[in-house]
Amino acid sequence: MLWVLLSLLLFIGGTDSRYDPTWESLDTRPLPDWYDGAKIGIFIVWGLYSVPAFGSEWFWQFWQGSHSQEYVEFMKENYPPSFTYADFASQFTADFYDPEEWVSVFNASGAQYIVLTTKHHEGYTLWPSNYSWNWNSMDVGPKRDLVGDLAKALKEKTPHIHLGLYHSLFEWFHPLYLKDKAGNFTTNSFVMTKTLPELYELVNVYHPDVIWSDGDWEAKDVYWNSTGYLAWLFNDSPVKDTVVVNDRWGQGVTCHHGSYYTCQDRYNPGVLQPHKWENCMTLDRKSWGYRRNAPVSDYLSIHDLLTEVASTVSCGGNILINIGPSKDGLLPAIMEERLRQLGSWLEINGEAIYNSKPWTHQNDSSTSGVWFTTKNNYVYSIVLNWPKGGVLTLGSVSSTPQTQVTMLGYHQGKRLIPLQVSSEKNGMQVSFPPMADVKSQWAWVLVMSQVNPV
Amino acid sequence: MLWVLLSLLLFIGGTDSRYDPTWESLDTRPLPDWYDGAKIGIFIVWGLYSVPAFGSEWFWQFWQGSHSQEYVEFMKENYPPSFTYADFASQFTADFYDPEEWVSVFNASGAQYIVLTTKHHEGYTLWPSNYSWNWNSMDVGPKRDLVGDLAKALKEKTPHIHLGLYHSLFEWFHPLYLKDKAGNFTTNSFVMTKTLPELYELVNVYHPDVIWSDGDWEAKDVYWNSTGYLAWLFNDSPVKDTVVVNDRWGQGVTCHHGSYYTCQDRYNPGVLQPHKWENCMTLDRKSWGYRRNAPVSDYLSIHDLLTEVASTVSCGGNILINIGPSKDGLLPAIMEERLRQLGSWLEINGEAIYNSKPWTHQNDSSTSGVWFTTKNNYVYSIVLNWPKGGVLTLGSVSSTPQTQVTMLGYHQGKRLIPLQVSSEKNGMQVSFPPMADVKSQWAWVLVMSQVNPV
Amino acid sequence: MLWVLLSLLLFIGGTDSRYDPTWESLDTRPLPDWYDGAKIGIFIVWGLYSVPAFGSEWFWQFWQGSHSQEYVEFMKENYPPSFTYADFASQFTADFYDPEEWVSVFNASGAQYIVLTTKHHEGYTLWPSNYSWNWNSMDVGPKRDLVGDLAKALKEKTPHIHLGLYHSLFEWFHPLYLKDKAGNFTTNSFVMTKTLPELYELVNVYHPDVIWSDGDWEAKDVYWNSTGYLAWLFNDSPVKDTVVVNDRWGQGVTCHHGSYYTCQDRYNPGVLQPHKWENCMTLDRKSWGYRRNAPVSDYLSIHDLLTEVASTVSCGGNILINIGPSKDGLLPAIMEERLRQLGSWLEINGEAIYNSKPWTHQNDSSTSGVWFTTKNNYVYSIVLNWPKGGVLTLGSVSSTPQTQVTMLGYHQGKRLIPLQVSSEKNGMQVSFPPMADVKSQWAWVLVMSQVNPV
Amino acid sequence: MLWVLLSLLLFIGGTDSRYDPTWESLDTRPLPDWYDGAKIGIFIVWGLYSVPAFGSEWFWQFWQGSHSQEYVEFMKENYPPSFTYADFASQFTADFYDPEEWVSVFNASGAQYIVLTTKHHEGYTLWPSNYSWNWNSMDVGPKRDLVGDLAKALKEKTPHIHLGLYHSLFEWFHPLYLKDKAGNFTTNSFVMTKTLPELYELVNVYHPDVIWSDGDWEAKDVYWNSTGYLAWLFNDSPVKDTVVVNDRWGQGVTCHHGSYYTCQDRYNPGVLQPHKWENCMTLDRKSWGYRRNAPVSDYLSIHDLLTEVASTVSCGGNILINIGPSKDGLLPAIMEERLRQLGSWLEINGEAIYNSKPWTHQNDSSTSGVWFTTKNNYVYSIVLNWPKGGVLTLGSVSSTPQTQVTMLGYHQGKRLIPLQVSSEKNGMQVSFPPMADVKSQWAWVLVMSQVNPV
Repeated sequence: MLWVLLSLLLFIGGTDSRYDPTWESLDTRPLPDWYDGAKIGIFIVWGLYSVPAFGSEWFWQFWQGSHSQEYVEFMKENYPPSFTYADFASQFTADFYDPEEWVSVFNASGAQYIVLTTKHHEGYTLWPSNYSWNWNSMDVGPKRDLVGDLAKALKEKTPHIHLGLYHSLFEWFHPLYLKDKAGNFTTNSFVMTKTLPELYELVNVYHPDVIWSDGDWEAKDVYWNSTGYLAWLFNDSPVKDTVVVNDRWGQGVTCHHGSYYTCQDRYNPGVLQPHKWENCMTLDRKSWGYRRNAPVSDYLSIHDLLTEVASTVSCGGNILINIGPSKDGLLPAIMEERLRQLGSWLEINGEAIYNSKPWTHQNDSSTSGVWFTTKNNYVYSIVLNWPKGGVLTLGSVSSTPQTQVTMLGYHQGKRLIPLQVSSEKNGMQVSFPPMADVKSQWAWVLVMSQVNPV
Repeated sequence: MLWVLLSLLLFIGGTDSRYDPTWESLDTRPLPDWYDGAKIGIFIVWGLYSVPAFGSEWFWQFWQGSHSQEYVEFMKENYPPSFTYADFASQFTADFYDPEEWVSVFNASGAQYIVLTTKHHEGYTLWPSNYSWNWNSMDVGPKRDLVGDLAKALKEKTPHIHLGLYHSLFEWFHPLYLKDKAGNFTTNSFVMTKTLPELYELVNVYHPDVIWSDGDWEAKDVYWNSTGYLAWLFNDSPVKDTVVVNDRWGQGVTCHHGSYYTCQDRYNPGVLQPHKWENCMTLDRKSWGYRRNAPVSDYLSIHDLLTEVASTVSCGGNILINIGPSKDGLLPAIMEERLRQLGSWLEINGEAIYNSKPWTHQNDSSTSGVWFTTKNNYVYSIVLNWPKGGVLTLGSVSSTPQTQVTMLGYHQGKRLIPLQVSSEKNGMQVSFPPMADVKSQWAWVLVMSQVNPV
Repeated sequence: MLWVLLSLLLFIGGTDSRYDPTWESLDTRPLPDWYDGAKIGIFIVWGLYSVPAFGSEWFWQFWQGSHSQEYVEFMKENYPPSFTYADFASQFTADFYDPEEWVSVFNASGAQYIVLTTKHHEGYTLWPSNYSWNWNSMDVGPKRDLVGDLAKALKEKTPHIHLGLYHSLFEWFHPLYLKDKAGNFTTNSFVMTKTLPELYELVNVYHPDVIWSDGDWEAKDVYWNSTGYLAWLFNDSPVKDTVVVNDRWGQGVTCHHGSYYTCQDRYNPGVLQPHKWENCMTLDRKSWGYRRNAPVSDYLSIHDLLTEVASTVSCGGNILINIGPSKDGLLPAIMEERLRQLGSWLEINGEAIYNSKPWTHQNDSSTSGVWFTTKNNYVYSIVLNWPKGGVLTLGSVSSTPQTQVTMLGYHQGKRLIPLQVSSEKNGMQVSFPPMADVKSQWAWVLVMSQVNPV
Repeated sequence: MLWVLLSLLLFIGGTDSRYDPTWESLDTRPLPDWYDGAKIGIFIVWGLYSVPAFGSEWFWQFWQGSHSQEYVEFMKENYPPSFTYADFASQFTADFYDPEEWVSVFNASGAQYIVLTTKHHEGYTLWPSNYSWNWNSMDVGPKRDLVGDLAKALKEKTPHIHLGLYHSLFEWFHPLYLKDKAGNFTTNSFVMTKTLPELYELVNVYHPDVIWSDGDWEAKDVYWNSTGYLAWLFNDSPVKDTVVVNDRWGQGVTCHHGSYYTCQDRYNPGVLQPHKWENCMTLDRKSWGYRRNAPVSDYLSIHDLLTEVASTVSCGGNILINIGPSKDGLLPAIMEERLRQLGSWLEINGEAIYNSKPWTHQNDSSTSGVWFTTKNNYVYSIVLNWPKGGVLTLGSVSSTPQTQVTMLGYHQGKRLIPLQVSSEKNGMQVSFPPMADVKSQWAWVLVMSQVNPV
């Protein structure tokens, strides 16, 4: 009899694959396929901080939380004394916001998913949430559903690009959060009336494929009811089959649980990781939100960006490339240029990136700036610097008599032209073609077959 | 044993006079003493509608609810197309708001209590509510606790004036309210996360002596949990001994339950009422909120106002005189003038008003514009028009040989000068003194002793 | 022959009555009839200072000229550091400006002329001057010709009310003026390119009957070319027959030349003047421009105002009563009330004011607060306080057996009722009627025939 | 004695080379040396149009002059109906304007002079002109002397870069201009009180080395008094020895008179010109003023820009590269990037540009995209496209046995490495080095000695 009952339970469990609200159970869920193959995402950080567009998206906290002098001075010099952060809202016009235009740039960049800040730590929501009345983009500022409009454009114009939604669990200055916090998180009125209703609303309305949680670190997952929410997300939500989540769900959770790990901002370990991870990084070295006064030297060059892409993907990560739109809803031209440069590179070299897997070695032992991926029995070397003298020495790859090496973007008609290879004691050498004959710029990919790791 | 238990319960109930959350029980609570004697209150209607200061405090509803043409045009002509009601908040500066100055004017007016709109149907709160983040006077607009600052000034400068707080149960456009409403009020997330927390917060923080509820009519008291709240208010709140409430607590409640009845706006029945009531009326005939473009002819004259005062008090009511401060926190001079005129009249004639009771008759049967009150065996006739020929005929009062009649403000030294009285078949006649010798203006009060009703 | 020529010249001079550009000549021009009879004017002071509406119309000078602390603080607390006075312009909306409404109030007040500030010392013009581009009411702020719209309403609705235009010769901060001033007024580029072109433009476009000049005191008339301008005004301008000018045309000119003298602000000498004069005074004791925060106690009461009217007219002056509209184009209700009260008084008592002349005595020697005027063989006593005991003693008037005395507003049907008069050793006594039977309020006028000065 | 004196005067006159106010005389003035050698200038177009930053710097004219639908719609959708162009001024904050930062970018670009719009056709001046009160950058908007601050930074940080000032003679909507124009330019009050005083002021205060006049085309030079002004500029002004002027000084003057000719916007004739000229062109293909919504595709690529530089300089022109700063005073990053890219190219290849002269041929007859300059007996070929196969064929140059050819940026140590040259029937061939070994990007310069034109 007991046996029958147990069987029944197993049977139910089996067919339903329902997850319990525990990390043990949630961690058993397989990563939905699409995510690992996608590799390249774009992270859009947009909110009221895009109005001052000064310092960073932590503007409010630096100004009125930690009273950083630079921010205090900025406000003093440019605004009346009684100006509050909320007053920025009416200047957040988004009057040039054209989601179809955005989507066409994202598409040109080669990205396979995007993640939009629906609500940052400031608490202002970019969608008309029932739980953030008069503090959202429909009621004050743009007078639009910024999230919904982007989701729609994506669906209509580039359905292959997945929608991700960033959401901050906490809000720096929300009175109910501060009250819960003052009580050492023994009450949870903030979570019950704000955080969770929002998270359900976001999923039910927009059907995202990524929930990118943040702002978790001050309280444990038990306060946030993270596992409860995720169990619903994985068992019953409209996106239960496709959604992936990151790892920022409470103190001690980050880098330990979640569909993939982000660990910390701009995390790029340089070595292979045992669990799927993501390098979320910024085009503007110093900020996620738009900074009006960022000089061009603060932006990654396309070479810098490709270095990040190669090292991340080689080590098993996805890369989430941050841009910060302006308060008028525009992608600053310098960012658009970087994205289009990336796209033009991926158009030639994407074969080494999308759906690739890490190889035995991640980067070369002899020549720095060379990163490996593999797919379909090919090994790809992503070479970030044209070798001096035109000959590349690889210390981590050894050739065989059957070895063939070509370079993406170097071809006759549609056929890639084989490069000259010579076997060396510790590795191999590849003779590069005349640079002027190669289509790729900034970095070059060798396609190697029948090679072995050293 | 059961008997003992029952006795104990009865005993507790008895000593505590605790009220049940039912109208039957709540209605048994006696009206706290101070209220009936106070007679004169000031109603301050102030909020974001004070920014456009156009039409009325229902600006938002008329503009975007019923799309009244006048309001739609006004917005079209003066604001950008994307301007929302919430955008008015940043212009609600209250930069000249000086609560001590207000209080000194209220005091000069002779008012014994005030009622301030802490939140009108727009939902914007005039105090930093934990339940209205970024939609309150501390976060956007004045950057001050408008309620708290007034409460403080009152306490420090004129502690004899009672603080009343107006609060709207519903909010026209709150998404949670609209959701509850769409479901025929079978859910109550709005009440649970917004209305009730606010009502508790208001009482716990500001200790008001009046809760002036409004915005109740779309739903039954059961939705609002009115009786539950009032039971707490009368049993356990910090103001349980002094607080009075009006009658706007749900569909069908108005004019039937509450410490006193308001029935409808500008309610002034002209006949004696069986239950304590209040005439809430406006100095600006057409609006409760400030209207910038109100011509002087839209304001009650002091004579109009005294007519309201006399008729209201004679019939057992209190009068709650509405003023609408400007967005910069000022009392418009014309309103200040009326209040000071009223105060100067009450300084002479207040004896007939404060702590008075209705008399046998409310107004005179022979001469219109004559209203009666009584106190300490005196009957007071409030005479709104100086009688032609200087002789007043009263049809509802008969004199006796002991009858003495004087006029407030007509005296020699401190002694009131007796007026000549003659008995008539149906009533009596009083000879008025030379008008130039009387201090009172606009209306005159006869003090009559040893008279009888006809 | 020479004699003939000379005669001819004189003859031509005679018929043409052309004036030379000298005070000797200009002073010979007779005062156009309408002005002395008009007695009551309204002075409208309106400009960018109506936006802060704080302190006074000298806001700019006090803030950035003399750095008065009160003004500096006000700006510091309410505006960003870089805010300039010119930034007020965009907030000068005049969105409720309805010149026909204004004119109807002016008409109700009994005024016979108005004077509008077309340009105060700030330099901003209330008409679209060719000489003040982008610093006028058409280009920035109201986007209307404020002067022209008022002139039009006056012409169409109340053609009997004369249009006067105030104009400031100097501008505190105009760079060309400051340059001329720095050179001790030995250059005059400011006058040539700004002041004079404006003055010609105003007259040619709007045909005013009063030019009310101001801002003259820092430089001599020779700098302003005042006499040259006035010669054109009196000889050749479209209003040469009707226009009157005041006396503020250069250092040393004030109180010495001009159609009438203003001498100084709020000039009210209390004794008869040898030359026509005008008492320009304010309803708000402390400011000509609107002050948002003026309490009602800063406004003249109607009794105060009638005191000014009586004393001014009795001594041969006109009174120019200042009001300050708000930045939204409205007449503050308290000001409208005073004007309407004045009008209601003049409707009864205007006979003693309009077209009257000073009498032998100006005010009474026995009873203070009694002022005299005369017209058509009547002597009028304006009595500001109802006499104690109802009997007025006059020390400056003696009665004759034929003496008849009535009181305006005290009549049977249309006939004024004679009052009892008794002759006294030094003057006479008049028995006042019962106050309650008199229509006039606040002040009373006796009409006396066949009386003599004592 | 008199004779001696006269001789002396003539002598002085003679040495002075004074110019008459006629084109005949003015055209005899030699072009100051510095200008032809400078070659590269930066044109900064900045004004109130930078606030909407929409369409172009002709915003006002398109909106309210020709009523272009796109502009009318833009205003209707984003601003209140009564908004005027002047209202943009308060939003022209320039709060991040850092002239030293600008100057360091200009310096990095390799430019030898800059030209700043001190006043565009809108009339708003970027300096505190005495003749544009309250319509200049000190009184409204930035509250700074934008011209003066840039001039100062230039002088202190990069004194070798020459200051040029752009100035529009006419103003679309200035009432005095419109009046003069309505009278067919038979009056000139606009020129006398506005244009000329400004032009004198600019030179006397800022000592510019270029006066870049514009807005001349509606009227003849006689209206503008152009020759009179230029005679003063060349004879008596503080910059008489160094200043150069362009050719936009009146109808029919452009392309005929002036220190150098601009003929028309983006003038780049592609053939050698007989008179010194300048190609003023834009980085944003569609606008001189900043456009917020310009996609990256509207900007010239660095290759496009070098094509313009090479073709212009080869044909004897200077190039004036336009950028449009933002309303907050920043150089948009994409523009900064182009300027820095240009600078990095010039650092290697500037030898072929600065102080060069046109050669016998301007561009090559065999290979397109090759332009020539010459200096010090060298002939420079600027090669815009790397030749296919690595061998460049030149049809306009023939080699001699002594011919040496090197490539800038291709060297061993400091020594340029000779390239292989072969003589051809009609011209010569040059073998390019491995591209990977050359420092220059985007375009390459061959230095050729001992060659002859074909």
